[in-house]
Amino acid sequence: MVTILNQTQTIISQYMEGLLVAHPHLAQLKDLPIIYHRHLDEELIPILSGGGSGHEPAHAGFVGKGMLAAAIYGDLFTPPTAAHILEALRFLDKGKGVFVIIKNFEADLREFSKAIRLARQEGHQVKYIISHDDISVEPKKQFQMRHRGLAGTILLHKILGAAAQSGASLDDLESLAFDLATEIATIGFATKSATLPNACLPLFDLADKQISYGIGIHGEEGYRTVPFTSSEHLAVEITNKLQIKFHWQEGEHFILLVNNLGTATDLEQGIFLNDIHQLLELEGLHLPFIKNGKFMTSLDMTGISVTLCRLKNKAWLDYLQAPTNAYAW
Amino acid sequence: MVTILNQTQTIISQYMEGLLVAHPHLAQLKDLPIIYHRHLDEELIPILSGGGSGHEPAHAGFVGKGMLAAAIYGDLFTPPTAAHILEALRFLDKGKGVFVIIKNFEADLREFSKAIRLARQEGHQVKYIISHDDISVEPKKQFQMRHRGLAGTILLHKILGAAAQSGASLDDLESLAFDLATEIATIGFATKSATLPNACLPLFDLADKQISYGIGIHGEEGYRTVPFTSSEHLAVEITNKLQIKFHWQEGEHFILLVNNLGTATDLEQGIFLNDIHQLLELEGLHLPFIKNGKFMTSLDMTGISVTLCRLKNKAWLDYLQAPTNAYAW
Repeated sequence: MVTILNQTQTIISQYMEGLLVAHPHLAQLKDLPIIYHRHLDEELIPILSGGGSGHEPAHAGFVGKGMLAAAIYGDLFTPPTAAHILEALRFLDKGKGVFVIIKNFEADLREFSKAIRLARQEGHQVKYIISHDDISVEPKKQFQMRHRGLAGTILLHKILGAAAQSGASLDDLESLAFDLATEIATIGFATKSATLPNACLPLFDLADKQISYGIGIHGEEGYRTVPFTSSEHLAVEITNKLQIKFHWQEGEHFILLVNNLGTATDLEQGIFLNDIHQLLELEGLHLPFIKNGKFMTSLDMTGISVTLCRLKNKAWLDYLQAPTNAYAW
Repeated sequence: MVTILNQTQTIISQYMEGLLVAHPHLAQLKDLPIIYHRHLDEELIPILSGGGSGHEPAHAGFVGKGMLAAAIYGDLFTPPTAAHILEALRFLDKGKGVFVIIKNFEADLREFSKAIRLARQEGHQVKYIISHDDISVEPKKQFQMRHRGLAGTILLHKILGAAAQSGASLDDLESLAFDLATEIATIGFATKSATLPNACLPLFDLADKQISYGIGIHGEEGYRTVPFTSSEHLAVEITNKLQIKFHWQEGEHFILLVNNLGTATDLEQGIFLNDIHQLLELEGLHLPFIKNGKFMTSLDMTGISVTLCRLKNKAWLDYLQAPTNAYAW
């Protein structure tokens, strides 16, 4: 397979150039892999998120008024360096501190925690949340939950971003983030693994017409591979796993986010959304906010993930519905 | 390959169910393959567009305030029937007539023209434009231009939709559409053909690491197949073909729309956008409006198309920048 690019070492910088061309509200910090909102309000707490690249439109697609103040990139599937994160923290802190949203991957935690420690030593106030919405399990480790940071992270971006926009303090954001993070769960499936640019082989093997459940976003295989039967069957498995996490009761309110992991077609995603929606309604759940689109991908993986967030607080809904100019929300 | 769906005969209806779940401003007309804007303003001229399905998010993604009043679907790569189009025209006409945007394909013209004739016989005022932005050529027919309706059609949706929103009459819309349609040109490339759901083979053959230039959106092969070298080379070929169409002069103003034909990644599209943008700037063109996204696809084709529109009239820019709640703009 071919990937439409030039030389691989400049992938991210060329991609960022394209972003800036298409989205005039975005700007690049020096020549760093950092995209920020050109019209930052210094009275508000800025929120930083990011991680490896290969997950587009995450995270620059969520930079804008009412969402992230900045997004930081690493190389493909590689976290940003602590040095770059520190630069972003210094730039964003206008005296009120910075809030950081980190996806739960070992390498990301290492770089972000180092940068936060250094920033604090310099006198910057930094608080953070570790997004760990993944409820997939690791078959080789007695089916232990993996708790990686997946598409549910986007709900943190939106809700915390809207809260910051409405004037929340750094402490308010931390408290809201703690409340939220444990109520968000994501699980997905793929019909095709991601392939690194111009590599010959995909990152994991999946025979034709096979489904892998519980895949990660860096080419990590799922917990089970089965033959494809129908979109409905996919929705049943996903619903079952979400039920085990939430133990929901009839009448409970949830936010639903259905995410294209890369190259599922809109047609497929619409059909699957209809199936998952029907099942959740059969369970008696109320779904006052449904978001369907492409938010957190794994390069050219073909698959879909489903995120639910238990609506413990009515304010979360207002934050979700608040306007933003972030282009991928 | 596998397509995430249930039984094929219900693809479109299940997809439409999914659409309605995700987008509360959309509604379905009876049980017909017609999606309309729930909050139609009867003082404005409604605009109808549509065609075969398989091009999602076209056309329902462009239904909303300031764009289309309704979108009509046929089966996969098959136009809607004249009977259904007639139903849509009857429904939309609240006494001021209906404007229709038709993509230039023989089968589409047959069904739309029959429906328009019948609607006129019933006393409805109907005017229309045939979108023919394709500048690809047919090698088997002495390189005659194909003039199919491609992603440039979306600029008609947006500009005419905003004009209708601002109170344009049916005659105003017709005149604006004639001015616009000849100034829009589209050409694209693919690295992988579309495959019909659960078919074993793609609609045309393209060996690994080959590029087809000038592909259609129903699996029609392009005018030339060459080995992939770089995103820059793709941009050079596309720019050359657009230059032949427009014979532009340095300093001219154009609208640029870069369209994902299905399953190019955001990363690839950003890199390509950067390349095409650099070349157009080198040509001395001004690009006051750049739109980058997924607008008119061909199922799971991997490729990108480029649309330019010569900005003959400053008002077109205002119409492009006017707000809309259409979810795919």
